[in-house]
Amino acid sequence: MEKCEMFPFIDHTLLKQDATWQQIRELCQEGMDYGVASVCIPPSFVLQAADFVQGKVPICTVIGFPNGYQSTAVKVFEAAQAVKDGASEVDMVIHIGRVKEGRFDDVLQEINAVKEACGEKILKVIIETCLLTEEEKITLCQLVSRSKAEFIKTSTGFAGGGATLADIRLFREHVSNGTKIKAAGGIKTVKDAEDFLAAGAERLGTSSLLALLRKEMKG
Amino acid sequence: MEKCEMFPFIDHTLLKQDATWQQIRELCQEGMDYGVASVCIPPSFVLQAADFVQGKVPICTVIGFPNGYQSTAVKVFEAAQAVKDGASEVDMVIHIGRVKEGRFDDVLQEINAVKEACGEKILKVIIETCLLTEEEKITLCQLVSRSKAEFIKTSTGFAGGGATLADIRLFREHVSNGTKIKAAGGIKTVKDAEDFLAAGAERLGTSSLLALLRKEMKG
Repeated sequence: MEKCEMFPFIDHTLLKQDATWQQIRELCQEGMDYGVASVCIPPSFVLQAADFVQGKVPICTVIGFPNGYQSTAVKVFEAAQAVKDGASEVDMVIHIGRVKEGRFDDVLQEINAVKEACGEKILKVIIETCLLTEEEKITLCQLVSRSKAEFIKTSTGFAGGGATLADIRLFREHVSNGTKIKAAGGIKTVKDAEDFLAAGAERLGTSSLLALLRKEMKG
Repeated sequence: MEKCEMFPFIDHTLLKQDATWQQIRELCQEGMDYGVASVCIPPSFVLQAADFVQGKVPICTVIGFPNGYQSTAVKVFEAAQAVKDGASEVDMVIHIGRVKEGRFDDVLQEINAVKEACGEKILKVIIETCLLTEEEKITLCQLVSRSKAEFIKTSTGFAGGGATLADIRLFREHVSNGTKIKAAGGIKTVKDAEDFLAAGAERLGTSSLLALLRKEMKG
């Protein structure tokens, strides 16, 4: 794959706790300049970013992020607010404790409740692979495939571990029903990105890849 | 201070992403048995915990946690939901990016908006010291003192750094108006706890202190 062909797979991301509007605006400008899939930013910046980009790049934001243990009512409210503010894509974190309790029906219902708040907007479901067993990952691949969400996503990047190639291959084997895969966290090189795409990811959540690609294209 | 005199200063805490109801219930039981200030748990467990403890220990939960960059409307909704579910205390995270932008009025307004949703319940304001300069910490001590919140709190425990003695002393010097101090993150020994209390903290957010105190009392 040519380097420039990778831009449409990137969710160009800035989710640091202390990110400022100036940094978010730069990210949005880069997103527009390079035609990325979306810019992924904190919820409180969505309204301002939507005004800035004027539809020239999709805005993605995060819900129940990064710990996932907000109540369902709060996640639904947060998703609705994000869409109202101008988000086209919503990345939600599941309640990992419910997975550990085996309450998978509750996890599924929560995903579908958030999806209802998203309407036609894209919903990605972050399962936080680094906290899960192989069996839990497989069960969640099947569950997200049964849900109304469009994507399953590996990681928040805030729980000590990110996407691995093994996880993307596992997802590819166990998702169905047209469910797409987003790899996030730990995509540090262009080679990583190529490998994740080759393994079956259709989105890459990354803070650094766009800069790396620009550097290689110039080099 | 006798070991047993420390229990009423402890917010006995479990905020791991994958905490289960069984673990939260144990924490609540310990909180009731030892007369801690509160049990501090994720929002999605508050309703169940309130039913379990039947008012025998105050329930504390976290809002906009841990990254603080949710929109104000979401934090307000989340706080109202927490109080409705049975929380007596709410620990909110400020929008750190707004601090970096110098938009302190927005930070103050958000604190007061969340406090309004809390009504008579206690509000603690987490400023995440490890991401701040000395000057920002001092400004926030003054700002939280001007706000309607009851406490200023050092840390979430999720941003790579916790409370330090130097920060508690700095807080003590710069808060006014009856604002109390909660130290959280990094309280790993009974000696730490004694030092933080001696320096002026009136609450200690900690996952491990209660077990350590029990061990020392038996020993």
